Amino acid sequence: MQQNSLRNLISIIAKLPGLGRRSARRIALHLLQHKELMHKLSESIISTAKEMKFCEICNNLDSVSPCAICSSSTRDKSLICVVEGVADLWALERSRLYNGLYHVLGGTLSAINGTTPESLTIDKLKRRLVSNIGEVIIATNATLEGESTGHYIASLVEKAGIKATRLAHGIPMGAELDHMDDGTLTIALKLRQLF
Amino acid sequence: MQQNSLRNLISIIAKLPGLGRRSARRIALHLLQHKELMHKLSESIISTAKEMKFCEICNNLDSVSPCAICSSSTRDKSLICVVEGVADLWALERSRLYNGLYHVLGGTLSAINGTTPESLTIDKLKRRLVSNIGEVIIATNATLEGESTGHYIASLVEKAGIKATRLAHGIPMGAELDHMDDGTLTIALKLRQLF
Repeated sequence: MQQNSLRNLISIIAKLPGLGRRSARRIALHLLQHKELMHKLSESIISTAKEMKFCEICNNLDSVSPCAICSSSTRDKSLICVVEGVADLWALERSRLYNGLYHVLGGTLSAINGTTPESLTIDKLKRRLVSNIGEVIIATNATLEGESTGHYIASLVEKAGIKATRLAHGIPMGAELDHMDDGTLTIALKLRQLF
Repeated sequence: MQQNSLRNLISIIAKLPGLGRRSARRIALHLLQHKELMHKLSESIISTAKEMKFCEICNNLDSVSPCAICSSSTRDKSLICVVEGVADLWALERSRLYNGLYHVLGGTLSAINGTTPESLTIDKLKRRLVSNIGEVIIATNATLEGESTGHYIASLVEKAGIKATRLAHGIPMGAELDHMDDGTLTIALKLRQLF
């Protein structure tokens, strides 16, 4: 029924994060019915692949290396925020509240997936822990693996004589208690603060 | 923060059905971190765009026109199943229960979207309603627009002196009543059958 080229396209699309066979079929059909979008997409993929590279300092994605953040003159160079991935860096940048540097780990430590400190950018981070750094904010995800990776990095940072902090845990703004999981409720109660 | 080429790629991906900015960012990042997948995807898009065309008879997608179904010698040519889109045709083909021909409408009639019979393949369908056709199965979706399009086509088919049928409505196999909407429960009760 489906031709080889189409079947191949669908299985490639199905490999993208968050997509399955069903949504891949839907996307492939949509592309075939909108050829101008199809051409734009393939051109955009090729030009983005050519242009983007990982920053040699912080592992951020940019068209230049060192990236725009690392080479910015207005950023606070005494502050490093450690994140798991580039998506986390983007999320923090969207908030416009942070003006320091970043360090992108490229994942979390995981015994199950065999992710060791060597497969992340932890060695690079160690070399950045020099005397002009005043604080390292550890912003790994609030998952089991994110937390244990955070603990590991905190110990490295403290060993280098630098203050290690982490993002606050608690109820997200606008959320209803009824929708919160027990873990969040427990930590929110434990870390309660004076009005 | 994000470079132009990357921002452009993300907004193109976000236009695909079922995807938003957030999933588009995730997919773009995944592609940048898996360059071989990126190259495969762009190549596959280009070759699929070149290869696939719409069947001149039934509007199905195939590498040849007329499509493999229309030109098959083992298909029952007295039977046409009318579907809204190619995805519906694929779904019926996966069931392997149907051995007739198809007619892909390319959408539904909709006053809101301004979809008139002329913008669908209804004229083509009319020309197919000749004496050797014994039955037209109308398999538009069980939505408001699918149903009204189905009624419109049924009247054309009957006017041509051909039997028009439609897929049964009711509770899907394996479903729990508790999870069914009122519309489905109503129709399932109304169309109840003897054991």
